[in-house]
Amino acid sequence: MSLVLETPVDGPARTLRLPAPLRLDSGQSLEGVEIAYCTYGTLNATRSNAILICHALTGDQFVASTNPSTGRPGWWPAMVGPGKPLDPDRYFIICANILGGCMGSTGPGATDPKTGAPYGLSFPVITIADMARAQAELVTALGIDSLFLVVGGSMGGMIALEWVKCFPERMFACALIATAARHSAQNIAFHEVGRQAIMADPDWRGGDYAKLGVRPEKGLAVARMAAHITYLSEQALQRKFGRELQSKALSFGFDADFQVESYLRHQGQAFVDRFDANSYLYITRAMDYFDLAQSHDGRLADALTAAQDVRFCVLSFTSDWLYPTTESRRIVRALNAAGAQASFVEIRSDKGHDAFLLDEPVMREVLDGFLASAAKARGL
Amino acid sequence: MSLVLETPVDGPARTLRLPAPLRLDSGQSLEGVEIAYCTYGTLNATRSNAILICHALTGDQFVASTNPSTGRPGWWPAMVGPGKPLDPDRYFIICANILGGCMGSTGPGATDPKTGAPYGLSFPVITIADMARAQAELVTALGIDSLFLVVGGSMGGMIALEWVKCFPERMFACALIATAARHSAQNIAFHEVGRQAIMADPDWRGGDYAKLGVRPEKGLAVARMAAHITYLSEQALQRKFGRELQSKALSFGFDADFQVESYLRHQGQAFVDRFDANSYLYITRAMDYFDLAQSHDGRLADALTAAQDVRFCVLSFTSDWLYPTTESRRIVRALNAAGAQASFVEIRSDKGHDAFLLDEPVMREVLDGFLASAAKARGL
Repeated sequence: MSLVLETPVDGPARTLRLPAPLRLDSGQSLEGVEIAYCTYGTLNATRSNAILICHALTGDQFVASTNPSTGRPGWWPAMVGPGKPLDPDRYFIICANILGGCMGSTGPGATDPKTGAPYGLSFPVITIADMARAQAELVTALGIDSLFLVVGGSMGGMIALEWVKCFPERMFACALIATAARHSAQNIAFHEVGRQAIMADPDWRGGDYAKLGVRPEKGLAVARMAAHITYLSEQALQRKFGRELQSKALSFGFDADFQVESYLRHQGQAFVDRFDANSYLYITRAMDYFDLAQSHDGRLADALTAAQDVRFCVLSFTSDWLYPTTESRRIVRALNAAGAQASFVEIRSDKGHDAFLLDEPVMREVLDGFLASAAKARGL
Repeated sequence: MSLVLETPVDGPARTLRLPAPLRLDSGQSLEGVEIAYCTYGTLNATRSNAILICHALTGDQFVASTNPSTGRPGWWPAMVGPGKPLDPDRYFIICANILGGCMGSTGPGATDPKTGAPYGLSFPVITIADMARAQAELVTALGIDSLFLVVGGSMGGMIALEWVKCFPERMFACALIATAARHSAQNIAFHEVGRQAIMADPDWRGGDYAKLGVRPEKGLAVARMAAHITYLSEQALQRKFGRELQSKALSFGFDADFQVESYLRHQGQAFVDRFDANSYLYITRAMDYFDLAQSHDGRLADALTAAQDVRFCVLSFTSDWLYPTTESRRIVRALNAAGAQASFVEIRSDKGHDAFLLDEPVMREVLDGFLASAAKARGL
């Protein structure tokens, strides 16, 4: 593909339409793929200061600007912004809604050009590598051969790992935060609960709800509630809510007596307002399929050999039970075996998996140091 | 109440109808309560060898005999039987379906004598203490003043703790296995997900499904799937299933590709065949309400002061993240502060919460030793 966009400018979200069909891991091709993205900062003359931020399962391209659909500010304020580690005054920052998403990039809610109706379940099952390939097309279209950094937390880290595997020559550094190189049985199990909750909702209509003007809101809310528990540590839930009641006494009924119940219900409801149920099915499926070493008979180091010239920073959080430190250590061991430079820090936090989205001073400091060193080596 | 049943005999399940209304913690009374129970072994002449086994959330009275509705053998074969710690050749063993249950004891699926229709949501919200009080009526009716042992795992341990609080003079010893003296925020959160899944099912019909001849099967299956994950450790899931596929390759669809998905779906479906959705709502609610120290401003030792003459054995499992060892230690510390004898063992196991249902040799040995010592002290 040779499409190169005009010199990118900072501003509202834009959309790239891929000029050629996107070949998928499933063997299928997807035509007319659109990738919705935001950029922040200015690409330098040598096009060497670009950073790609990969978002998590329910994230989006609005990493540092207001999400127009929710009106909420960017989702990573602690990390992206002037004076922050990912500084648009210094770097050209790209964040794209993933393939399969529902914030403007092509996903199951998009219109199938063959039928003129929403894809629904006729959308092909995609993989994390497919998401990375779609991003690579965007990076190419932006005129960037080599990214200074690919960074992601949670599923974003998985996408970054696929970049490492598929496009190691197109990246200088990589930061992997609260992530894993494969989905565990427990990870798959929680996602399967969510998918079953969605598909149990009669308004899901076999995935055709968009054509029929309904939405499987209850099922999607239950899916979000179950997932949300895994994003927090037991300690964080206990500290935030404990057994605190909504009112003074137990109701002896089934309303939300406990604050934690009310909080979870709110999380479920707020999610329904901003997310598409079929996207949730497809993205969780892609995550469950993710196992970077699978193509190398389980030998993760072999999957990473081409990455020996990339500099890595791997971060985990002590209370993250979704992608625990053991998974980060496995990545670091494989990187070491592959001959790559990898620094690893396990950050003490009781906030669970979602700590990566919060302002964790150690995370900021470690990434600041890592980026300073990498920028110097890159001549930035 | 003065009803005393004829000399109990070993045999199939029987049912006791309480002669007087049962006063509940909610302030309501429940008339015509029936308690379905099984007994094993023979009550001795001094009526001093009776053991009450309290079952867990989805357990039943068929602890050591075939469940007639499922055709499956008793649920605690490792612990109950000739030559096992809870030996019917030596003890008179009682196990009753809890109040609120769906295996014969009065619950939301029972007929409301006032209307002639199933209670549904007009059944009063009950507590763990209400369950213990109903059991105490049964024990009285069986002519037993003082139980040799009250034993329970998981929710069964919570019922046993309410026995300790409400009827310490009616028990000689108590074994608390894989349990807690209160439900944590995370415990409540998982239960709330299950309840929301059930109530989101349109066939739940506001709890009136039984009157309408339908059942919220999909919602109940999702609730069970979510709960089932919490019964196993991450390690157990990984060892049992890992990322093993059902067939040779990924399907690139939404069928159960992974064995863990198929296993969870099966758990959900099998549960629907044997359990009532409203019972699930009521029992999980009772568990969430459970906080033994709440009546004593959070001072657990104060709630247990009357138990200083009861001998305790407290067991936890290293990989149980539903009711982790910290909760057992909290109970032990409170028992020590209350002046009660308490032995405590944390058993090394990677099987998670459900280890208490399995044949864990250390659990067997510890309970054997505890019971031998207690039996000697009791003069059995």
